[in-house]
Amino acid sequence: MIDAVSYHSDSGSLELLDQTLLPVETKTVRCHNEHEVAHAIVTMKVRGAPAIGVAAAYGIALGLASPANHQTPLEQSLESICKLLAATRPTAVNLFWAIERVKKVVKAQAGSDFTAAAAIALKEAHAIKAEDIEMCRRIGHFGATLLKDGETWLTHCNAGALATAGYGTALGVFRAAREQGKKFKIFVDETRPLLQGARLTAWELFHEGFDATLICDNMAGSLIRDDKVQGIVVGADRITAKGFVANKIGTYPLAVLAKYNGVPFYVAAPASTFDLSINYGNEIKIEERDHNEVRFVGGVQVAPDNMPVYNPAFDVTPPELITAIITDRGIIRPIYGETIPEIIS
Amino acid sequence: MIDAVSYHSDSGSLELLDQTLLPVETKTVRCHNEHEVAHAIVTMKVRGAPAIGVAAAYGIALGLASPANHQTPLEQSLESICKLLAATRPTAVNLFWAIERVKKVVKAQAGSDFTAAAAIALKEAHAIKAEDIEMCRRIGHFGATLLKDGETWLTHCNAGALATAGYGTALGVFRAAREQGKKFKIFVDETRPLLQGARLTAWELFHEGFDATLICDNMAGSLIRDDKVQGIVVGADRITAKGFVANKIGTYPLAVLAKYNGVPFYVAAPASTFDLSINYGNEIKIEERDHNEVRFVGGVQVAPDNMPVYNPAFDVTPPELITAIITDRGIIRPIYGETIPEIIS
Repeated sequence: MIDAVSYHSDSGSLELLDQTLLPVETKTVRCHNEHEVAHAIVTMKVRGAPAIGVAAAYGIALGLASPANHQTPLEQSLESICKLLAATRPTAVNLFWAIERVKKVVKAQAGSDFTAAAAIALKEAHAIKAEDIEMCRRIGHFGATLLKDGETWLTHCNAGALATAGYGTALGVFRAAREQGKKFKIFVDETRPLLQGARLTAWELFHEGFDATLICDNMAGSLIRDDKVQGIVVGADRITAKGFVANKIGTYPLAVLAKYNGVPFYVAAPASTFDLSINYGNEIKIEERDHNEVRFVGGVQVAPDNMPVYNPAFDVTPPELITAIITDRGIIRPIYGETIPEIIS
Repeated sequence: MIDAVSYHSDSGSLELLDQTLLPVETKTVRCHNEHEVAHAIVTMKVRGAPAIGVAAAYGIALGLASPANHQTPLEQSLESICKLLAATRPTAVNLFWAIERVKKVVKAQAGSDFTAAAAIALKEAHAIKAEDIEMCRRIGHFGATLLKDGETWLTHCNAGALATAGYGTALGVFRAAREQGKKFKIFVDETRPLLQGARLTAWELFHEGFDATLICDNMAGSLIRDDKVQGIVVGADRITAKGFVANKIGTYPLAVLAKYNGVPFYVAAPASTFDLSINYGNEIKIEERDHNEVRFVGGVQVAPDNMPVYNPAFDVTPPELITAIITDRGIIRPIYGETIPEIIS
């Protein structure tokens, strides 16, 4: 199994598969403190909401073990480590959730002893990772019931083993369906600008022998229209109490195309992706990223110098376009404002 | 104005903007005979069906003026010059049309005098170019009436000055609107896989001082949903008698997104783009192109080695998604099977 976020107790370091180098190179980076973990998150060496959460949890453990943080009282150090890690990506709710979870346990149990605190944080990080894999397996188990033998499904971005602790949410549905003996095909959107579909999902699926075909994002429409797609499944970065889904840019157009052509559109995400404190899509802050992500592809300039660019990382899909949300607690369908808190809270 | 195909009488040469170097370098190449023009077409220094036709017409004039061709009788030389130029791009209809047109006039008027023949060919090439610009100006004139002051429009691929003799079809609408004193913003889809939007349309608009912003194809959806786009205009490769429009891949999803969100969707194309011999979209054969166009961007590998790819060059947008077709003969709206042959044939 692909293990993109793995802690090594012998060296006290976190090994991350450097996802910016895929699919051409398979290399890992080692993080020894919270700064290196934060840097890896900011530079998207590790990406995908659950994987970021797991990495940040380990980042707290590394920070608490790091002598550089032992100059100030534990509670103060803990706060600044958590603050640093929380400031890396503004949209990923799992990041804040994982940081809060580890912080709470450390505060409750550690007293003022850094060694104990680091051990407690590490244990909690291990737990978050194990729970994430188990959660993905449950999502896969539920989601696979929706995929019929012989169908072709489409996915966007990477909601796979690389984005999670190791099994995937949207791609977990495919893994579980295969474990159930189903035969199916998958179309993979390349997912500009950072090409997580081409670089990561294609790599994951090709690597594991799935029948997967890569397309550019703008090719999904005519495939859906031509009845070549029987289902779409994507991950989620954040889901509101009323079922608005923030996910990688390009998700919303797929949902509209699916609705227009009568194809089911599914979102696969663990309960931790839900943010019941907000109701509507416009309450989600959409991160706008570096314009050079659009102007350049792998170092190659594809647009004029200084060309103005708009580069939102996410879009929001409203609940009326979503057939069902596949969670680790079951399938939520229909997506009403009432059903979500009922199942998730 | 951008003049990608310009004849210089002082040096007796054809100057072509080398489109393979855009958007990073703005360089031109000079062609002094039919061989250099043919080479420029083959290597895609000049591209876009109308622009290729104009270049080939000038290529005949240069060939007839070239002493190297004066060893054989005029008619024989003319044939071999035309044959050479016609062999450059096997599917470009405008190329054959332009070559035939020049050949016919030269044959009818030139006798055996190479100097006279070259002058006749040159005059015809100038006429073809002027007519193309005039056609685009008429499209622009009609289309600009649809664009209101202060609006933001979106375009896809390159239906601009670089693809035509100098004014553009979809981009002609923007040029005409600006000439009418309107202020507006433009979003440009990068248009994977070959990035004609990022490389050519962005360059054209940026170069001429339009307020243009580049986005990835998958970002158009949320812009449309968020009321940031008031109109969409694209070119067309072929339009059937019943109004099915084949255009660059990614056009159909824009049309669905526009329909779903109540935004007008326009197609700008000269009457010559209509093929009244066919009725429905499924009668249009969609070219599937090289898989490495998706696997690589500007020489950079973005997908695993040998990753299966589907790479259709075009999609088909049905008439029910098109608000109007802007032609050089006027605006066709509504797009019914009856209205098109009425206006076009």
